[in-house]
Amino acid sequence: MKNVPFKGIIAYPITPFDENEKIDIPLFKHLVERLILSGNHGIAPLGSTGVMPYLSDEEKEAVTEATIQQVEGRIPTLVGVSNLTTEKTIHHARFAEKAGADAVMIIPMSYWKLTDDEIVAHYDAVAQKISIPIMAYNNPATSGVDMSPALLKRLLEIPNVTMIKESSGDVQRMHYLRRELGEDVAFYNGSNPLALAAFSAGARGWCTAAPNLIPELNIKLYQAVETGDLEKAKDIFYQQFDLLKFIVNKGLPRAIKAGLSIIGENGGNLRSPLKPLQEAETEELKKIITTLIN
Amino acid sequence: MKNVPFKGIIAYPITPFDENEKIDIPLFKHLVERLILSGNHGIAPLGSTGVMPYLSDEEKEAVTEATIQQVEGRIPTLVGVSNLTTEKTIHHARFAEKAGADAVMIIPMSYWKLTDDEIVAHYDAVAQKISIPIMAYNNPATSGVDMSPALLKRLLEIPNVTMIKESSGDVQRMHYLRRELGEDVAFYNGSNPLALAAFSAGARGWCTAAPNLIPELNIKLYQAVETGDLEKAKDIFYQQFDLLKFIVNKGLPRAIKAGLSIIGENGGNLRSPLKPLQEAETEELKKIITTLIN
Amino acid sequence: MKNVPFKGIIAYPITPFDENEKIDIPLFKHLVERLILSGNHGIAPLGSTGVMPYLSDEEKEAVTEATIQQVEGRIPTLVGVSNLTTEKTIHHARFAEKAGADAVMIIPMSYWKLTDDEIVAHYDAVAQKISIPIMAYNNPATSGVDMSPALLKRLLEIPNVTMIKESSGDVQRMHYLRRELGEDVAFYNGSNPLALAAFSAGARGWCTAAPNLIPELNIKLYQAVETGDLEKAKDIFYQQFDLLKFIVNKGLPRAIKAGLSIIGENGGNLRSPLKPLQEAETEELKKIITTLIN
Amino acid sequence: MKNVPFKGIIAYPITPFDENEKIDIPLFKHLVERLILSGNHGIAPLGSTGVMPYLSDEEKEAVTEATIQQVEGRIPTLVGVSNLTTEKTIHHARFAEKAGADAVMIIPMSYWKLTDDEIVAHYDAVAQKISIPIMAYNNPATSGVDMSPALLKRLLEIPNVTMIKESSGDVQRMHYLRRELGEDVAFYNGSNPLALAAFSAGARGWCTAAPNLIPELNIKLYQAVETGDLEKAKDIFYQQFDLLKFIVNKGLPRAIKAGLSIIGENGGNLRSPLKPLQEAETEELKKIITTLIN
Repeated sequence: MKNVPFKGIIAYPITPFDENEKIDIPLFKHLVERLILSGNHGIAPLGSTGVMPYLSDEEKEAVTEATIQQVEGRIPTLVGVSNLTTEKTIHHARFAEKAGADAVMIIPMSYWKLTDDEIVAHYDAVAQKISIPIMAYNNPATSGVDMSPALLKRLLEIPNVTMIKESSGDVQRMHYLRRELGEDVAFYNGSNPLALAAFSAGARGWCTAAPNLIPELNIKLYQAVETGDLEKAKDIFYQQFDLLKFIVNKGLPRAIKAGLSIIGENGGNLRSPLKPLQEAETEELKKIITTLIN
Repeated sequence: MKNVPFKGIIAYPITPFDENEKIDIPLFKHLVERLILSGNHGIAPLGSTGVMPYLSDEEKEAVTEATIQQVEGRIPTLVGVSNLTTEKTIHHARFAEKAGADAVMIIPMSYWKLTDDEIVAHYDAVAQKISIPIMAYNNPATSGVDMSPALLKRLLEIPNVTMIKESSGDVQRMHYLRRELGEDVAFYNGSNPLALAAFSAGARGWCTAAPNLIPELNIKLYQAVETGDLEKAKDIFYQQFDLLKFIVNKGLPRAIKAGLSIIGENGGNLRSPLKPLQEAETEELKKIITTLIN
Repeated sequence: MKNVPFKGIIAYPITPFDENEKIDIPLFKHLVERLILSGNHGIAPLGSTGVMPYLSDEEKEAVTEATIQQVEGRIPTLVGVSNLTTEKTIHHARFAEKAGADAVMIIPMSYWKLTDDEIVAHYDAVAQKISIPIMAYNNPATSGVDMSPALLKRLLEIPNVTMIKESSGDVQRMHYLRRELGEDVAFYNGSNPLALAAFSAGARGWCTAAPNLIPELNIKLYQAVETGDLEKAKDIFYQQFDLLKFIVNKGLPRAIKAGLSIIGENGGNLRSPLKPLQEAETEELKKIITTLIN
Repeated sequence: MKNVPFKGIIAYPITPFDENEKIDIPLFKHLVERLILSGNHGIAPLGSTGVMPYLSDEEKEAVTEATIQQVEGRIPTLVGVSNLTTEKTIHHARFAEKAGADAVMIIPMSYWKLTDDEIVAHYDAVAQKISIPIMAYNNPATSGVDMSPALLKRLLEIPNVTMIKESSGDVQRMHYLRRELGEDVAFYNGSNPLALAAFSAGARGWCTAAPNLIPELNIKLYQAVETGDLEKAKDIFYQQFDLLKFIVNKGLPRAIKAGLSIIGENGGNLRSPLKPLQEAETEELKKIITTLIN
């Protein structure tokens, strides 16, 4: 049977920087610990939230190791290892496996739009070099390539490609996935404002940066869905909708960092060219969070 | 309180033509009767399914009268009265009211993209001339204009604009609507493949041509949602997903007519330039329907 | 050889209404006369500029007859006869021919997206009933269907479909057309801001409402292109670019009517739901026109 | 006065790899030499064609140095130094300047969509660290951010941002640029199939990989435009249109490499995940090239 280590809320930590724009590893570990203690079901460093593409190879390795050390096996870890070249993707995937990751996430980054055959060969080459499972990630907005259900089906024929994360923002894609790939396909939602629709459609989990700010609401939504209580799920979803919308619209690293400050946590600095939210934006976020907490 | 006469499954009949491409009113009445007997909660002639834009003024009036006569008040009726000019829209809205319709549906048809002010003035001019409620219908793909939640809010300030039908195909729009317009907003889903997601988001009803072919499944989905049973709703939705997808992709009038033949009913002819489905398409539909029935 | 009666600047009159929103035929004739006297090479009533879709059958016939009477054969006439149904399109095409039009323009209006076969059958049915040439018009934004070069090639096989008007707004489509259909294909540009690019690509004419306001500049651009003088063409194009951009952005009927007032001409009223430009918009247009005239 | 070192045809070399996917520097120098000898007016290593994003820092530096050495000042060099982080962009820009580049090209790469202020700060930070001119490059399809004419205007206020390369694929953008930024703005076309339209609109140069295969046709098009001969420009453009379309559709590195083989030149290997063209695609290219040469 397929190895599918994730279910529920998979939390994405940000990568905090110090005043010189170097990664602040102790602060990172603290942020990871918060995500574990608040009850999330998985943790995923080096995602978009963690500004993985802005990091050097050495930095990615340091973040990977820091995560595994801090988690200490309490919840499963999903490490982002995507890279434009196949060689580098293999390098990072092997590093993650050796460091102790439970799975890796790979999006087919593509400066030059890749053909279906190139994408299959890319995943296949990586899969052959590791034995932990791979989550194939579809997000046309960031990768520049839209993997069709038919292509995802081909990828799932590779033994250790066992999971799909879908972030195209169109819930109908999840319906197609399930029809095309069967009821047992392990697909995960990566589009925050679609959380309710995706769970209703059968998503096994929700990959999200929101638990940095509102873990209880995220987890409660999952629990309501698990018990099949649609009314409750709807209520909890609408409570958090404004926040989900906000963090997506403003960019996750900027918005999560601002939100951490608002709730009294240190989120560190951003790396240029990313800049903090404008003051008016921060005020808007403050209002949303205040409403949620009271 | 606002007059909101619809809830549940609102069925859209096709308009059947004879061999000379004239409307076959007796057959139309028979198709309406089927929709009533199969338990739908409302009926909506002169929608896209009913090829309203392809009919002359006299034909629209004949269809309106035939519907009211056949329904005899058993379920509420929603008559499409949209037109490019304000004057004609008023004409058809008044006719529908006089004929006994419970409400009218109006989409802001726009050859020339309308401004928000023009759209508000258009609805307002019609609303002042009738006393039955209006469902404002957003479908950028057919109207050429996308009404924002902010604009819809303005429309709902007109006393007898009481309902919104949303067919932009993006479930997030329904989330925005509910956040922007309040929990009590009466919004309806017009995008078939979004039926589950829309009901999960709080849609009060589903405007659909599918009950011409699979009324039990459509109604069961609504009932599962009403009882808050997410698992059951999901199962029933996925059973009908292929059919919903098919009828949308092939065009509702063509697909419904072909489906009626498959289940042994007469759907009449289409009006040119619309042509029947190709044979291979009909075979595909036959397979989908056979699976559903057995 | 193919009958191709148009070359150069084909001017589109607006349809003026009186205070009761009825067509003002004497004023229409005056506006047509202006377009003839200012030296345009063809005239095209009942286009988008002439709000054809907002008119009744009788009104379309009156406009057709008024045009032919006023033109008196001084320049060729191209009458818009598009309709959602094939039957009505035939009706108007025959009327135009009988009234003395030199050609008809047909866009495949499509509430329900038409298949290629349906479109070919539609044009073919009309073509068989008239003997004057047909200009096939591609404008996905208003018709809802994008005719590929391959489909246009099929249409050109119908003997009296002899011209193509392309308004998709992408100059590359004109390159594809010429490559696919041969150097002799008679294609016309319907996208005002592309006037220079389209002529550079080999367009035989420019279908435009701009001559209602700036006929000399429109005609001079054509003449510069005809003499192969790229520098001059570029200069003249950039002189009129702001005006072309403005009238397209604001909607041709609204913008032309406002522009006529500015230059001291009467453009009549619009038909609801269309409303006049806002005051600030009119001021902007006044500035653009003043710059052009001085 | 602004320092604008480019005009005419700016040729983009590919980066060739050996059988181990390491850069083949001697072959690269040979390919650069071909571009110089065939009469191009500028050379631009480390562009998209040169798969810059797939290279390590060391590889980028080696390619930069190899170019400058080979060119020996015969034509001006434009080195791509774009990077996701500001720090790395500065690093590569300084390296290019020190190595002897005449200018650098910078696209605002953005995994996280950048705000206008972030983009200005990014360019400004780089500009302060170098004294050679910068070409700001707009290509929403690869950078994920579309720089408006208003934003480009802000960038041009930075003293050594002196040139704009526009690759959005919409010739109207060039019209807007020239209207917004004035007649003297130095803008360059980066969209191959728009070569004629862009030159007609006033583009000062054409950034293109096509001279690897058909330098004479590219240069002749520029010369026809320079002499203002529109007919000749049109003829020469249509001659090369199929090739331009092909190399863009198939991806420049793949297509140029295949084309080099066809004309008897060695283009080396690609770096994974990029794979060679399929056989049928190569055949199609062979036909296009054969037609051009004979």
